Amino acid sequence: MNSPFVSDVPAAEAHAAWREARAAAGCPARVETIRVPVGEAVGRVTAAPVWAQRSSPAFDSSGMDGIAVRASDTVGASETTPVVVTDFEVVDTGDPLPPGYDAVVMREHVHRTPEGAELRAAVPPYQHVRSIGEDISAAELLLPEGHRLRPVDVAACAAAGVVELTVRRAPTVVIIPTGDEIRPIGSDLKPGEILDTNSLMLAAQAREAGCDARVTDIVMDDPETITAALRAAAEEADLVLLIAGSSAGRDDYTARVVSSAGAVAVHGVAVRPGHPVVLGTAKGDPATPVLGVPGYPVSAALTFDIFAAPLLAELEGAAPRERPSTTARLARKLPSAIGMDDWVRVRLGRVQDQIVATPLPRGAGVLTSLVRADGLLVVPAGVEGHHAGTEVRVELLRGLNEINRTIVAIGSHDLVLDLAASTLRAADPLITLASSNVGSLGGLVALRDGLCHIAGSHLLDPATGEYTLPYVDKLLGDDIAVIRLVHRDQGLIVAPGNPLGIKGIDDLAQVRYVNRQRGAGTRALLDYELNQRGIDPSTIPGYSREEHTHLAVAAAVAAGRADAGLGILAAARAFDLDFVPVAQEPYDLVLRANDLSNPLLAPLWTLLDRTDFRASVEALGGYSCAETGRRIR
Amino acid sequence: MNSPFVSDVPAAEAHAAWREARAAAGCPARVETIRVPVGEAVGRVTAAPVWAQRSSPAFDSSGMDGIAVRASDTVGASETTPVVVTDFEVVDTGDPLPPGYDAVVMREHVHRTPEGAELRAAVPPYQHVRSIGEDISAAELLLPEGHRLRPVDVAACAAAGVVELTVRRAPTVVIIPTGDEIRPIGSDLKPGEILDTNSLMLAAQAREAGCDARVTDIVMDDPETITAALRAAAEEADLVLLIAGSSAGRDDYTARVVSSAGAVAVHGVAVRPGHPVVLGTAKGDPATPVLGVPGYPVSAALTFDIFAAPLLAELEGAAPRERPSTTARLARKLPSAIGMDDWVRVRLGRVQDQIVATPLPRGAGVLTSLVRADGLLVVPAGVEGHHAGTEVRVELLRGLNEINRTIVAIGSHDLVLDLAASTLRAADPLITLASSNVGSLGGLVALRDGLCHIAGSHLLDPATGEYTLPYVDKLLGDDIAVIRLVHRDQGLIVAPGNPLGIKGIDDLAQVRYVNRQRGAGTRALLDYELNQRGIDPSTIPGYSREEHTHLAVAAAVAAGRADAGLGILAAARAFDLDFVPVAQEPYDLVLRANDLSNPLLAPLWTLLDRTDFRASVEALGGYSCAETGRRIR
Repeated sequence: MNSPFVSDVPAAEAHAAWREARAAAGCPARVETIRVPVGEAVGRVTAAPVWAQRSSPAFDSSGMDGIAVRASDTVGASETTPVVVTDFEVVDTGDPLPPGYDAVVMREHVHRTPEGAELRAAVPPYQHVRSIGEDISAAELLLPEGHRLRPVDVAACAAAGVVELTVRRAPTVVIIPTGDEIRPIGSDLKPGEILDTNSLMLAAQAREAGCDARVTDIVMDDPETITAALRAAAEEADLVLLIAGSSAGRDDYTARVVSSAGAVAVHGVAVRPGHPVVLGTAKGDPATPVLGVPGYPVSAALTFDIFAAPLLAELEGAAPRERPSTTARLARKLPSAIGMDDWVRVRLGRVQDQIVATPLPRGAGVLTSLVRADGLLVVPAGVEGHHAGTEVRVELLRGLNEINRTIVAIGSHDLVLDLAASTLRAADPLITLASSNVGSLGGLVALRDGLCHIAGSHLLDPATGEYTLPYVDKLLGDDIAVIRLVHRDQGLIVAPGNPLGIKGIDDLAQVRYVNRQRGAGTRALLDYELNQRGIDPSTIPGYSREEHTHLAVAAAVAAGRADAGLGILAAARAFDLDFVPVAQEPYDLVLRANDLSNPLLAPLWTLLDRTDFRASVEALGGYSCAETGRRIR
Repeated sequence: MNSPFVSDVPAAEAHAAWREARAAAGCPARVETIRVPVGEAVGRVTAAPVWAQRSSPAFDSSGMDGIAVRASDTVGASETTPVVVTDFEVVDTGDPLPPGYDAVVMREHVHRTPEGAELRAAVPPYQHVRSIGEDISAAELLLPEGHRLRPVDVAACAAAGVVELTVRRAPTVVIIPTGDEIRPIGSDLKPGEILDTNSLMLAAQAREAGCDARVTDIVMDDPETITAALRAAAEEADLVLLIAGSSAGRDDYTARVVSSAGAVAVHGVAVRPGHPVVLGTAKGDPATPVLGVPGYPVSAALTFDIFAAPLLAELEGAAPRERPSTTARLARKLPSAIGMDDWVRVRLGRVQDQIVATPLPRGAGVLTSLVRADGLLVVPAGVEGHHAGTEVRVELLRGLNEINRTIVAIGSHDLVLDLAASTLRAADPLITLASSNVGSLGGLVALRDGLCHIAGSHLLDPATGEYTLPYVDKLLGDDIAVIRLVHRDQGLIVAPGNPLGIKGIDDLAQVRYVNRQRGAGTRALLDYELNQRGIDPSTIPGYSREEHTHLAVAAAVAAGRADAGLGILAAARAFDLDFVPVAQEPYDLVLRANDLSNPLLAPLWTLLDRTDFRASVEALGGYSCAETGRRIR
């Protein structure tokens, strides 16, 4: 291995080392220039200053409908001493000013008489005359070099007589997926196999950045085959993205391949997710930059943003695209390892007039964290995380108007909330209902702390056997409203056909159980049922294994990792599993009472009243809408 | 005319009236849905919720390179009491967890012995195990309806086993340019003719908004022909843009045509520029929305943003794209007529740690005001403008990082600054040099008020015959530096061959002169020269006609509207005009002394030292770089 760093190189140093390595290897600083008609130039970057070839407008013209006059003929005209002008010409807006005249009088101020045009006010020279070159003077600098062309730019060029522009061609990105376990999208997977979603994503990212992108066939884990693929890609590409497989140590593999095809400048950057990045070059005529992309999808996406996008903009000679940013209050404590820039995905919403940022799962494999993210928050390498409530800077992935119209739900997970989210948005694309699943108790705490609009809860109080309301009394003040969302069946999700013949809670000591996390209503229900029966939780195998949603519990049973888990019927159905009913429970929405009249939430209340929505909820199975929408506190 | 409003309908009411009219006429609320492979779905909008078809990862897998063990076999292991595990399997990251095992020990913590694997710590169940469904659980809501798909979204869909998506097709926009005076781009123009730049721009705007766009042939000003063109376009389009010619009253024409092909909902909105907008529908099966676009280019561009873009997003069922915004301090007074939303284009730059907004020319015909704009500021209909220094909200057209790296030059116009702007940006696309031309005196005042980094000045003090320094002493404090940019020739710009035989200032009483605005250095020079000769300015015909740049003066002479104007040689050359030298003058850059060490300005000083840059300046003609870059104060 001749890679100079296999370590945590800070991002800025990594950029600099790669730039130096590219220059040393003879990679072009810019892609070539081409000449294109203005009509095809939008999105491309100017490669030369654009000077106006002619003036626009190209002539003095009338700025109004009226008559062209000589200003000197109108001297002395007033309300009491009108002047009749005999030498004039009728003009419409945009007409060239006829020779010999130097001002225009609006139609409304002209009284035509048999003798001529009667004016009741003198006009100064050049009144209502639009000058030649008012917009653009010939030989004026219209656009500098290095400007990405927008619709208004090409229109202005055309107006200035420029019909062709010198621009940089679109850079070409070639993407090489590698790995014995990687399969094309649409394949049926065997255990251990993984779909090649990274190539799809990276190609789309490259196209969004204005580039041409091509994905090669998937290359097996053989250094010589990969090296050959890299050399071939480097022939046609301005940047090669070599995607490592998903296993650890696969970046060593990439580094070795890049090293044999050219040189490694950086191996390992102090960025998380994204750490095992390889930055290098491949020999050729000319040499080509190579980016070794980690296989975990969040790492892959962020590596493109952090390393590929700036290079591609540089190759075009343009400023990189920027994301807008905003400040937000952090909903919870955010620990971060020192020494790494930590790119945290967050959900955003405006609650009680503050934008609140809720961190999403941070694993490099959790692509949905990026799908659901409204923003990215970077905890710099030198900072050991933030306390809850800290004001942080967030790069926006969605517009602020959308964020301002987001109903923030934190609490227990229920499919009815998902259904509501999609139905609301279908009716009005400006409405978002964003739910974060932290369990019922977590939701009530979030509501108390001003982090959400509504908390979904089905939390059983073991002392009273009552749901949610006792906790609202304990945790929250008087000004709290509770709206019933649904009643739903809770039961044991078991393998199809219930091969172990599980009949209920009493049988759990004999099977492998999968549990929900502490604070989840479903866990409280289990504990209540165990307690009623005098069963010690520690006797339940798998009691300590926690999942965070009903669906994850069902997935564990479907995968054969567990024999039973408490959850809702809809989750069992989703995986074609069997279901042993245990209890029917209410699932409620808790909110600040004054938010009942918050216009943001109004569409939700309307939705809960709709019979078609109630029908689609009950069609999920295991739900009753008998009390849906009723205020119970 | 059966248009219900020919008036100033507030924008919000106009939107509502158009929406009602579309519904009444039977225009579709959404475009049709299509099924597309995930690989082709980026940029499209989901037309149905997307539910995960399978879990990702689809199996429990190792999160580390190491060995898979049963956690129960490791109980009691510690530094002092190692445990040797004999039943284990070697796994790499991403490998499925072999059946029967429930935890992974990192390679680094395993000591292989002849007996087995020696562990010095007990491991909890599920340590380093990545759960099935960690990213996505089958049956989970992945994306709601009404979501515009990004690269990460389609990758997540593919990972969840979704290979095809139900999306809305791209809306089709058909653009009809009309007007006897309109000519295709690239035509040689006769006086009064105008290039069809609006169609080019509107088609590019529609494509940027994710639509298919087609431009019809230019249609002459005949109501029946236009009506026929509108009917034909409505057959294929989801939205027809009917561009009025540039003359006033042409919107009546459009309204009449729309009325005969369907119905007019709104004629005239309280938006400037953009007022004579027509919103309506064309009959057909189904009916089609029609937007009558004003012919002035700024009006046309803003009309698309304000009325077409939101409708097109609505047809796709998506939230409209948003521009980010920022607050800025207004550089000068901004009057605005009450009763109209006034869309003002502004340049932005960060000066002394505040973002400063300088309004650009406001004419609806000045497309370059939109090209040069960094932001848009809306003065609402109810507000009568703003005072200088007011904090205003600005929609951003450029990224804040770029704005923060913008050198703001306000003052006299010189081509050397344009050349410097383009050369700086060619070397580093992140640097912008933005000059606003307000004359030398205006620049010095702007510098005093903290509105710019540098003021370009060549202001002659009639009392001393000295340039710029006396004004700096009078207007600005001690902490001011002055850097010489160039010496340049000022002279009379006259027609080719100097047909009137103009020899100098003494001849100006006999010719049609074109002047520069008050506060311009060139005007001060003229006044000084006239004063030296005892000539009364009022005897110079055209003395009161003001232009704001050298090029505009040259353009006036080139157009035959004036016989002579004082200006620089480069401007005369740009229009192939003759030049009668009058004086050589220094053109200087004035700045706060502490900005000499401002890193933002450093590239400018480096540029002034470059011999190739100096050579290209002198090649412009009439410039001397003998003292370029010298600090004279």
